Amino acid sequence: MGVRVKLRYDKHIALYRHIAEEFRTRIAKGELPPGTRLPTVRALAREVGTTRLTIHNAYRELQADGLIESVVGRGTFVSPQAQPTAQPSFSERLEPDSVLSDLHRLQQAKVLHNLALATADPTLFPYLSFWACLESLKPLAREVFGYGSVMGEPELRVALGELLEQRGIGADPSEVLVTVGGLQGLALVCRALAEPGEEVLLEEPTYLGLLGILKQFRLKPLPVPLDPEGPRLEVLEALLKRHRPRFYYTIPSYHNPTGLRFGESKLQRMLELSQTYGFTLVEDDTLGFLSYEKTPPIPLYALAQRTGLKAQVVHLASLSKVLMPGLRIGYLVAPPPLLERFTSLHNVSDITGPPPLLQRATAQFIRQGGLKQHLKQVLPIYQKRRDVLLQALSRYMPPGVHWSRPEGGFSCWVNLPRLFSNLELHHQALAQGVAITPGEAFLVQADETMHVRLCFGAQAAEGLEEGVKELAKLIRARVTHTQT
Amino acid sequence: MGVRVKLRYDKHIALYRHIAEEFRTRIAKGELPPGTRLPTVRALAREVGTTRLTIHNAYRELQADGLIESVVGRGTFVSPQAQPTAQPSFSERLEPDSVLSDLHRLQQAKVLHNLALATADPTLFPYLSFWACLESLKPLAREVFGYGSVMGEPELRVALGELLEQRGIGADPSEVLVTVGGLQGLALVCRALAEPGEEVLLEEPTYLGLLGILKQFRLKPLPVPLDPEGPRLEVLEALLKRHRPRFYYTIPSYHNPTGLRFGESKLQRMLELSQTYGFTLVEDDTLGFLSYEKTPPIPLYALAQRTGLKAQVVHLASLSKVLMPGLRIGYLVAPPPLLERFTSLHNVSDITGPPPLLQRATAQFIRQGGLKQHLKQVLPIYQKRRDVLLQALSRYMPPGVHWSRPEGGFSCWVNLPRLFSNLELHHQALAQGVAITPGEAFLVQADETMHVRLCFGAQAAEGLEEGVKELAKLIRARVTHTQT
Repeated sequence: MGVRVKLRYDKHIALYRHIAEEFRTRIAKGELPPGTRLPTVRALAREVGTTRLTIHNAYRELQADGLIESVVGRGTFVSPQAQPTAQPSFSERLEPDSVLSDLHRLQQAKVLHNLALATADPTLFPYLSFWACLESLKPLAREVFGYGSVMGEPELRVALGELLEQRGIGADPSEVLVTVGGLQGLALVCRALAEPGEEVLLEEPTYLGLLGILKQFRLKPLPVPLDPEGPRLEVLEALLKRHRPRFYYTIPSYHNPTGLRFGESKLQRMLELSQTYGFTLVEDDTLGFLSYEKTPPIPLYALAQRTGLKAQVVHLASLSKVLMPGLRIGYLVAPPPLLERFTSLHNVSDITGPPPLLQRATAQFIRQGGLKQHLKQVLPIYQKRRDVLLQALSRYMPPGVHWSRPEGGFSCWVNLPRLFSNLELHHQALAQGVAITPGEAFLVQADETMHVRLCFGAQAAEGLEEGVKELAKLIRARVTHTQT
Repeated sequence: MGVRVKLRYDKHIALYRHIAEEFRTRIAKGELPPGTRLPTVRALAREVGTTRLTIHNAYRELQADGLIESVVGRGTFVSPQAQPTAQPSFSERLEPDSVLSDLHRLQQAKVLHNLALATADPTLFPYLSFWACLESLKPLAREVFGYGSVMGEPELRVALGELLEQRGIGADPSEVLVTVGGLQGLALVCRALAEPGEEVLLEEPTYLGLLGILKQFRLKPLPVPLDPEGPRLEVLEALLKRHRPRFYYTIPSYHNPTGLRFGESKLQRMLELSQTYGFTLVEDDTLGFLSYEKTPPIPLYALAQRTGLKAQVVHLASLSKVLMPGLRIGYLVAPPPLLERFTSLHNVSDITGPPPLLQRATAQFIRQGGLKQHLKQVLPIYQKRRDVLLQALSRYMPPGVHWSRPEGGFSCWVNLPRLFSNLELHHQALAQGVAITPGEAFLVQADETMHVRLCFGAQAAEGLEEGVKELAKLIRARVTHTQT
């Protein structure tokens, strides 16, 4: 049976045209990818209730356009050349889920200057050296296709333990849990630490993915505003006095989306507050290795170990930004009793983490020094892009526009006067070939400023400069417009 | 810093022995896998508060046992030969989560006759032909390490669409969602269709993994008992009259754990009830392809399409049992509005499914006919094992023991008189080298019978015969014992 056809009739257009159009649209949308088998002429004629000739004509038209092709004895298929044309667009809602979808669509689409994605640049992936690690596992092919271990492959946990040492964290392999990307770990921690209806602390702005998870699990966010050094501690402490938050989700080492590094005295105080008020600090270190500074920041987990403070810290990270997202490898570190809870929940809801094959290949890649080598190559490139972005902002943006100065990670946070209605700026920018992320999706509460996240990881220097220039033009025009 | 040491002091034993013992235990438990770096002698001496000589002595002892080794200039590591010796055991609780952990441990452990695991036999994995598909993707290495598509790689959705056709299901690639194993799909569906506190229908017994998920999401199970033809419909209808269940999770094509195939008239009636009472049928077809019959069963989804009944059906499946679990590939099919809800939730909580690399390789494997070929090879082997198991049961089991006659899948459901207290039989069997699954973990409510699941997929014929013989011996002994 396979593909089914729904038709909207219009008497004035020949039926075969309708049918051809229906397929054309669905192929363009990507709903029928290359290789999809179309119904036989006979079957489709019966389904639509028309003659075989009509279907023949429709297929002939699609064939003439190179969208479908017949393989003798096998059937009619969507051509390999028929690439869907994803339309970059923004949905009208600024909820985390719809913005996430928008970002996914932007990833597939062709945009001239794409400053919307806080991802690594795929053209810089160390895919060839990684592939060599993969190939070396061929003699173990049988065992890497089994279920694997709930906590993650031992080899990878050993390798991650060594990686964590580079972040100043002492962790046994038995204290490391491997997850499917960072998000599975975050979802696990949220579910394990809080019940629906309970409150959790977070920074304002914060990671988009967290807001989506909180909404899904019905956890109530208590936002803590930031200053250039990190969370405003007097607000944090006031909240702790009036609420009983289960945990505080924080991104101290290159905060997403601002790129800020929190000051060490702030970290010290956060640990003390965790000890005093008895809440868990959930530290997201996904960007910790993406440092453009001489001395990378110390994670809360390492500081707790160093100071011996009785704070409870969970350390979350992922290789998606630092290495390649297609590995789907995230990991978390926690003290034994907490880790046991996470592992048991993981066992029930996910069975295991990412495929053992990719875990083992990643372990080898890390232990052979591949990740170190990769970071040595890409960090100067990303740093350069950061510099280009900041220079372009200084050069083109009109007064009244302010931005953060990221010391690591992939993104910069821009505040501008509310000159545009909600998504207007984003739509206009997209029309000029510039994609940016609506900053409101990172906030619990909108304020009187308009927010934009600009990402410099996946865009080459020239594109960044041009993108900022176009964006500044739109803003300047509106400033002049509103002043007159 | 790395590995940390916790010591239990006993004045009568030399400290270096203590230290060696601590490492020995942790290596045996698998907490310190091969390759783990041990602290330097200096660092550990400082941490423990002893002399370097003491640590030297401890390390020398471990080295003599071949458990650790020093690499000049790099440090001291757990030896590659130091394999953990996982102890097979059963925890005292019969909750889904602890039984799941027990099963995982049983997978790693060496058990003489392992009848506990409802998995495919790893020695039958088509890993070499799969590896060829993997290698053919090398020219695409860069793109397969990116994020990939939220719904799953288009190539794989096309291939799964064709696979579904073999089950009689007509589905566009756009109606297929790829998930990380079958469990991620099941969790997604549960969360999307029901709110905490709401009721869901399921069969008694049912898939262990579902019970774990229901507990986690606080969904209340409404069990429907089975007869040899499927669910007892008068009970189902009575429940529907008094409750408002959100969905009915069902395993019609080789029910797990009984191996039964539901009769088509039952399926027809289930669809009618779904239409009348407005609940969703969530059909788990994970075992649908593992058929030892001439005519495989028709899925509910296909029957709904064929009859045109306005029932709402979601079709869940996975390649873990049919192909290899290490691919972590599951998939689901649903009508467009439902699928959209699942996809949007998937986007927020998982970002994407399994790694694109493995999705693409699997697509190729399926489209080249690899799966068809594989099933042709293994189905006769599994069928033979099923026959051996059933013959052994007839031959060795005393009167009063009853079992199902599986027509597909990997497991057989055994009822016996309650001669043993809770886990006693399982512990005794394990002591005789026979692992079985406690059947109570598949039930919402225990009854006066004792239940055992026996699996024949991963155990060769001789092991099955021996296993059943040993088990029957224990049961016979107890029958005699209780009768005297």
